[in-house]
Amino acid sequence: MAATRNVLFIMCDQLRRDHLGCYGHPYLRTRNIDALAARGVRFDNAFVTSGVCGPSRMSYYTGRTMSSHGANWNRVPLSLGEITLGEYLQRHGRTLALAGKTHVLTDIGGFERLEIARNSALGQRLSSGSFVELDRYDGHHEPGNESGYPAFLRQNGYVSDRPWSDFVISVEDDAGEIHSGWKMRNVRWPSRVAEPHSETAYMTDQAIRYIEQQGDEPWALHLSYVKPHWPYVAPRPYHDMYALDQCLPLARRASELENAHPVLAAYRTQEECINFSREEVSNTVRPVYQGLIQQIDDHLGRLWETLERLDRWRDTLIIFTADHGDFLGDHWLGEKEQFYDTVQRVPMIVHDPSPQADATRGTTETRFMSGIDVVPTVLGALGLPGYEERIEGVSVLPLTRGEAVTDWRDCVVSELDYSFRGARLALGRRPDECRGWMVRDARWKYVHWLGYRPQLFDLSADPGEFVDLGADPAHEAVRVRMHGKLADWYGTLKRRVTIDHPSVESKTNTHKQWGVFFGEW
Amino acid sequence: MAATRNVLFIMCDQLRRDHLGCYGHPYLRTRNIDALAARGVRFDNAFVTSGVCGPSRMSYYTGRTMSSHGANWNRVPLSLGEITLGEYLQRHGRTLALAGKTHVLTDIGGFERLEIARNSALGQRLSSGSFVELDRYDGHHEPGNESGYPAFLRQNGYVSDRPWSDFVISVEDDAGEIHSGWKMRNVRWPSRVAEPHSETAYMTDQAIRYIEQQGDEPWALHLSYVKPHWPYVAPRPYHDMYALDQCLPLARRASELENAHPVLAAYRTQEECINFSREEVSNTVRPVYQGLIQQIDDHLGRLWETLERLDRWRDTLIIFTADHGDFLGDHWLGEKEQFYDTVQRVPMIVHDPSPQADATRGTTETRFMSGIDVVPTVLGALGLPGYEERIEGVSVLPLTRGEAVTDWRDCVVSELDYSFRGARLALGRRPDECRGWMVRDARWKYVHWLGYRPQLFDLSADPGEFVDLGADPAHEAVRVRMHGKLADWYGTLKRRVTIDHPSVESKTNTHKQWGVFFGEW
Repeated sequence: MAATRNVLFIMCDQLRRDHLGCYGHPYLRTRNIDALAARGVRFDNAFVTSGVCGPSRMSYYTGRTMSSHGANWNRVPLSLGEITLGEYLQRHGRTLALAGKTHVLTDIGGFERLEIARNSALGQRLSSGSFVELDRYDGHHEPGNESGYPAFLRQNGYVSDRPWSDFVISVEDDAGEIHSGWKMRNVRWPSRVAEPHSETAYMTDQAIRYIEQQGDEPWALHLSYVKPHWPYVAPRPYHDMYALDQCLPLARRASELENAHPVLAAYRTQEECINFSREEVSNTVRPVYQGLIQQIDDHLGRLWETLERLDRWRDTLIIFTADHGDFLGDHWLGEKEQFYDTVQRVPMIVHDPSPQADATRGTTETRFMSGIDVVPTVLGALGLPGYEERIEGVSVLPLTRGEAVTDWRDCVVSELDYSFRGARLALGRRPDECRGWMVRDARWKYVHWLGYRPQLFDLSADPGEFVDLGADPAHEAVRVRMHGKLADWYGTLKRRVTIDHPSVESKTNTHKQWGVFFGEW
Repeated sequence: MAATRNVLFIMCDQLRRDHLGCYGHPYLRTRNIDALAARGVRFDNAFVTSGVCGPSRMSYYTGRTMSSHGANWNRVPLSLGEITLGEYLQRHGRTLALAGKTHVLTDIGGFERLEIARNSALGQRLSSGSFVELDRYDGHHEPGNESGYPAFLRQNGYVSDRPWSDFVISVEDDAGEIHSGWKMRNVRWPSRVAEPHSETAYMTDQAIRYIEQQGDEPWALHLSYVKPHWPYVAPRPYHDMYALDQCLPLARRASELENAHPVLAAYRTQEECINFSREEVSNTVRPVYQGLIQQIDDHLGRLWETLERLDRWRDTLIIFTADHGDFLGDHWLGEKEQFYDTVQRVPMIVHDPSPQADATRGTTETRFMSGIDVVPTVLGALGLPGYEERIEGVSVLPLTRGEAVTDWRDCVVSELDYSFRGARLALGRRPDECRGWMVRDARWKYVHWLGYRPQLFDLSADPGEFVDLGADPAHEAVRVRMHGKLADWYGTLKRRVTIDHPSVESKTNTHKQWGVFFGEW
């Protein structure tokens, strides 16, 4: 009976929860992800801390909310002051390897201010978010020297200075003409790379090789796929594996456009929303999006076989999730960011190898999980300290192990800062005026916006979130109550990060030891 | 007509607002502070961000709330990631000199983690909170080599290894016996140092010398008195300058002890509260406390004369305030921390030398000011950038200059973390469960506590805050509304500190410039 020694933290980018078989998709055949769910616990109410890649990932990597880690959009670096999972592991002689995407940006201002050399060992570690990069690959940019993928492509005959642009996200139509996959009209055709040379195949190869190389040495790996994120180009045969009638129907109503919330209305002036509001667009993209997911699932089958062959299922914690979903035209939106469950509620499967978790295998957990729970779950599984002065999430191991838990959270919060988006300009707001917060419990979803009325959805009566009760006088009491829950939540965030709890304990009521005798008569 | 070039930021430690003539004290003759009010604007609703020295000062020095700067009690270092006024000034070729107390602690963990050498120029600057220390002197500890005060004492004949303990806070009774001023029973007798050698005199000397030495060079100085903070020992003649019948009556009622809030009840088990609840104690301390204030006022007269002689009133911004008050037995409490106005509402006088402020001289401003407004006021007066991505306060110069201001704050928030106090042990709570927040508007004071019922005071009907309506069913709607204001306030705190507003502006909706073409059809 082995203790948990290894960690495999798998993230997909922009993967919708409702696009997996085990979460109820009627047509997508995700048998490997479903098999993981059968061996672990499927969390049915897992939410991200923000529906944007960067802030959501920084919460996954720090165990802290967006309000606390501060990296509140993709172009905002994580502060040097924040500590990531890799650094926690390093403190205990472990490393966190990376294959794929992190969205980590260097806090250049912080480096300059604190005179930290970028090329020092410290500088390099901090610049990488304390991941040990097997191959960092963030996708959707021309890869630089951070990734071996371009060289791999050239070795395999894709000769170009920009093999990603020219092959991976380029497509060839039936007439042999080449088009860019940046244009969504073109994603109906297959990528110009063969499937074994695609991003998903390549990154799975990196992960398998690393796990094999580790042998019996303990390891921790973040395998972070850039798919099914745009550009929605799939290699053959995945580009046309699914037909439109095997896709989920569009979840939107004309009534959503009447008296729409100002922020939503502003989002719908953005190009991706305008385009995804046209059925031609969503009808073109959705089947390919499903194909990209099918491809990931197929490659995860290779990974599971590797773990089986190496006998690693018995000592490996596996977490499978996504950084957020993708509207694909639902609610007259494209992309992500807004607070509908489509984007905020993500797949989350936890395989806890401990025999204590045997009773929960294959079960569904309906209590709320948040992206901030991953770091404490990993630390807990490895028997490491919890760093509770900083980490705001909680380990879900008590849930996977069926322990009696009486005080679990009854709601989750997600946040958005849209100051980098066109919506800010459309609304004429300043960069510090563009914030929203979602408080979601089992029944209600409340969204507080700086400067605008709130949104409110009754998820019991309206699970599809089509009827915004944010201005309905009959629901004032609900809104007030949910707004108060936001204050409650804020009050639990961790602000005192320069001293840990044991230090507080040891210094409580000890002023006389320090020669301070106030209050004596 | 000179532009504002100099800054004199004067802080007293533990000075009650109601203990100044200009704030209505019937007996204390604070003619110099009153004269400053006559030359500037007296803020009648100025509040600290926490009723504890350390966190309150870190807000004064960073322009950020306690929740944002994180130094939430005296033993908690300010994070290396926080930027203080001295660092902002340094960026523009200015220095912020210090004479007196700051309560700055070194973030040792941060230094180690980021490999910053303590003895490097950067390390030394960060360790001092970016003050240029003329003489740092935090009082209430045996001074180490950070201050010239012990050497000054020895030069003046106070021969001891511990001249502060043996002379400054030691007293001599009528029989010639020596006692420690740590025991409040002894503060009826005078300090063993002559008045010119006392802390207040010495630190005023440092300030005057610095201002004189600067000549016509611009300067910025933080003159930070350690008095009238405990030990409440005053030099002759201030030790018995005031009689008990010249002190304010005790503000407390027996009814406050009935059904007291659990946190208040726990505080009242602490030694300083037990002792200050006895009239013998408050009767002994209050007259001396007044004497210590009288002494500060007298020395400020010397400082004002210096400014007059050097013709510096015309180009010097002067801010006079305190880090919090002192209960002295009011509400059956000693010391500070709790959310009564006695401690949270502080004296605040702003002398804006600009001719634009001539119309407001000698007036009283009733709009809310907060400790976080000092940094932006200083930056604004000197014409420096506002660093709005970090600084949460706002400049009060529009108020001193009588400008039309339409959207001023309608409430202030203060915070408390009592995890280092005996109250935590009395209540059996963990270090992250000991937090409270006050939201105070013109009429209501609402206090939200983690784990306990709120407090509520109707300041119109009960300006003395004797009747806690926190459990009164008739006031549920008020509490709910005030709780919501807490969420509103949280939502305005500055979390994105690694990138400034102009950078956000320049990167808004620019993804195509970066080669990212999502959402195109």
